[in-house]
Amino acid sequence: MSRRGCAQVCNAVHLDFNTKVFEKEHVKFANTEEYIVRGGRDKFPKLKQAFSGIKTIGVLGWGSQAPAQAQNLRESIADAGLDITVSIGLRKDSPSWAEAEATGFSEEKGTLGEVLDVVSKSDMVILLISDAAQAKLYPRVLAAMKPGATLGLSHGFLLGVMRNDGVDFRKDINVVLGMGPSVRRLYEQGKSVNGAGINCSFAIHQDYTGTAADIAIGWAIAVGAPFAFPTTLESEYKSDIYGERCILLGAVHGMVEALFRRYTRQVTAGMGKDEGMSDEEAFVQSVESITGPISKTISTQGMVAVYNMLDEAGKKVFQEAYSASFKPAMDICLEIYEDVASGNEIRSVVQAGARFDRFPMGKIDSTYMWKVGSSVRAARVEDNIPLNPFTAGVYIATMMATIEVLREKGHPYSEICNESIIEAVDSLNPYMHARGVAFMVDNCSYTARLGSRKWAPRFDYILEQQAFTAIDSKAAVQQESISKFLQV
Amino acid sequence: MSRRGCAQVCNAVHLDFNTKVFEKEHVKFANTEEYIVRGGRDKFPKLKQAFSGIKTIGVLGWGSQAPAQAQNLRESIADAGLDITVSIGLRKDSPSWAEAEATGFSEEKGTLGEVLDVVSKSDMVILLISDAAQAKLYPRVLAAMKPGATLGLSHGFLLGVMRNDGVDFRKDINVVLGMGPSVRRLYEQGKSVNGAGINCSFAIHQDYTGTAADIAIGWAIAVGAPFAFPTTLESEYKSDIYGERCILLGAVHGMVEALFRRYTRQVTAGMGKDEGMSDEEAFVQSVESITGPISKTISTQGMVAVYNMLDEAGKKVFQEAYSASFKPAMDICLEIYEDVASGNEIRSVVQAGARFDRFPMGKIDSTYMWKVGSSVRAARVEDNIPLNPFTAGVYIATMMATIEVLREKGHPYSEICNESIIEAVDSLNPYMHARGVAFMVDNCSYTARLGSRKWAPRFDYILEQQAFTAIDSKAAVQQESISKFLQV
Repeated sequence: MSRRGCAQVCNAVHLDFNTKVFEKEHVKFANTEEYIVRGGRDKFPKLKQAFSGIKTIGVLGWGSQAPAQAQNLRESIADAGLDITVSIGLRKDSPSWAEAEATGFSEEKGTLGEVLDVVSKSDMVILLISDAAQAKLYPRVLAAMKPGATLGLSHGFLLGVMRNDGVDFRKDINVVLGMGPSVRRLYEQGKSVNGAGINCSFAIHQDYTGTAADIAIGWAIAVGAPFAFPTTLESEYKSDIYGERCILLGAVHGMVEALFRRYTRQVTAGMGKDEGMSDEEAFVQSVESITGPISKTISTQGMVAVYNMLDEAGKKVFQEAYSASFKPAMDICLEIYEDVASGNEIRSVVQAGARFDRFPMGKIDSTYMWKVGSSVRAARVEDNIPLNPFTAGVYIATMMATIEVLREKGHPYSEICNESIIEAVDSLNPYMHARGVAFMVDNCSYTARLGSRKWAPRFDYILEQQAFTAIDSKAAVQQESISKFLQV
Repeated sequence: MSRRGCAQVCNAVHLDFNTKVFEKEHVKFANTEEYIVRGGRDKFPKLKQAFSGIKTIGVLGWGSQAPAQAQNLRESIADAGLDITVSIGLRKDSPSWAEAEATGFSEEKGTLGEVLDVVSKSDMVILLISDAAQAKLYPRVLAAMKPGATLGLSHGFLLGVMRNDGVDFRKDINVVLGMGPSVRRLYEQGKSVNGAGINCSFAIHQDYTGTAADIAIGWAIAVGAPFAFPTTLESEYKSDIYGERCILLGAVHGMVEALFRRYTRQVTAGMGKDEGMSDEEAFVQSVESITGPISKTISTQGMVAVYNMLDEAGKKVFQEAYSASFKPAMDICLEIYEDVASGNEIRSVVQAGARFDRFPMGKIDSTYMWKVGSSVRAARVEDNIPLNPFTAGVYIATMMATIEVLREKGHPYSEICNESIIEAVDSLNPYMHARGVAFMVDNCSYTARLGSRKWAPRFDYILEQQAFTAIDSKAAVQQESISKFLQV
């Protein structure tokens, strides 16, 4: 998305990092500055120095990310002329074993083995097993690592789990984050939208060897990130778990359920249900409008552009919807953030994992609304999808609320933009546009699915109970809130 | 409610207690047995021995319970001819100070004072300040207590808070529970339904003096409990916080929102919204049916009687609704229980308390559905309220799910019945019948309100996403589930 949408929204902490190999680029956004690193194939010659001392990289798991990461790494390393073995670690009875073999990894070549064998032979261990498996297996994985080796996480989730367990990482290893959640979710979707913006966050949590930053950045570049920005493991897991519960998945789902009901019923004082829209029209004015023109406009021109495209009447409707929705949405966003930060949310995810045998997660995509959605999508004429000003007001208020909490909590600028705007409009919403919001939720990682199922209904209820009732009782537009938004 | 509704539902732990003063009564329910104590004014002569060594009872707070408790205690003690002072502890700038004075407590007589002064002078301290205030003030209250004094809790909430904080009670005091949540909630409602069944649970958490059980039971009897049953502080807070999130408040709210929507729309394959009921009719068939005839029937004849009152067609509808709803409802019930047991839920309540200044809880009673409810109640003819078989199936399945989780987790029989049936049909539902479900939620304690706001939407969504979709796709009735229910 355009810098304009991001700029001025976010104040951020300044995160420095110590690279001997790569070039730091100093960037300024409004009141904040950050160092970032530009990736690309022209940086491959630097991988030799970045990965010095690493002879074997063990990639654990073969889920949504591992196949792509392992193959990208293997190719990048070959292209860079390095003598590093990429080895896959799996359970021997895993159905993925054959899949890994089919892409050229094998026990004979020493590039495929049992999880803990691979761990004990690797100088770098990239942990790409599911969150639930990480929560269970981490003590054994850590114990099996070589002293001085590097543990590469794709996500800070494990740090949250270990905090709840009251334990810390071994001190004699490096712990780095080398790939942010946006890449992770893009892989989960199985597609790369426009080929653009697979921004990769990285973090150095423990630097035992003094070379952890270069390893982390090297990893990001080898995997294909065009652009890497620094964060911390803690900041990453908080913003990631938070973001998917807010505007990325949970909030957008709850919001469209509430909007769809409102539009079909369109209850205002004294109006009966027959004055509402048809089901199809209500779906178009809520879901289609968000995943279509609203997302596209934010992506290319920023949030304020959505407002500026409206006529005077539309601007008034937007203002009413925005100013009534911002505070209720932020109420839930802040609750989510604090539940994530306190460890509650991760504890709930781990507990839910233990119940799956008895209570597997059912699909949420089979209700009436999503059947309407399916037929609406089938008959879609892209150019006819309207930019509904009420929908836009509610959506953008909730996006701003998502941002505001991260800003208050001091997250880095790049991370805020990624977890509340870029991923939404450039990655998840386009996918939802193709398949529906509920389908997207049903096809995310467990952690994201659980979170979305938990928080979507909260956004739904609070919008109906507080925002819509305020609008229908003609509550005054909160000019301060609107002015703040228009300065974005 | 009738014993029949309870019997056989619950297997329970057997809790014994050591009383030198009162008579234990041995009761058997199905496979389980418990000791209970019968209260009543004829036991007042025993209070002298039970309260031996207690010269001053300090009652902290003047909220929903304290005025009634303090006055009941004062009168019972006078009637029993005891020389015990009941003293109220408040902040000096509290608006309640004048109210306490108006009921005859005063600084001059030494029966009204600053919180910590009262604590330091009391041989028994009854903590009736709000959950939020307890979470903040407990370190100072505990520190100010006399060695050998008794801390009386009306609720185990504080134990949950202290566990999250990693601290324990001082070892040189008694810690008892002397009044269960049902009494608490009855007082909150400001009324006593039928004058019946203010059952009082009690627990002995720490018995420093060896007389804690008699103090706890004496307290229950002095306050007017006709009937006291034993539990533990832990069991009480878990079942209490759990119960109000499930069938007592959260589940019943979420369920009627889902049922009301379903009935107005009544979407079955190929049906459009115009084939639904009128808004008023939908409200009658969902909310009115539950808070009216379904509750009354369960209260007087038990759950199975509701089923037996239906004709053959109604029984079939009940079975479909019941068997599709039980497992989804239990999924959420179990999640709630584990979030309560792990400390998550209490941690969230404490965190929410810290946000109230910025994000006060808004009312949930202003949405369209509850406006419809208000006019339906105004025009109500009690005898015309139907027993809707679909509504009954969903409601009773959720009540059974609430029970089943408590049973699996080993709660005492009396507590299970109280927290999942008696309070619902004899206390809360009649209140909801008078004022509406959403109004009841808006007028509960913070802990209950927060919990209901959090979990109601989860029950709503899971019923719509899993139960109703199963029914509409003509999923087979699960005979095992129905048979198990009919054996209740």
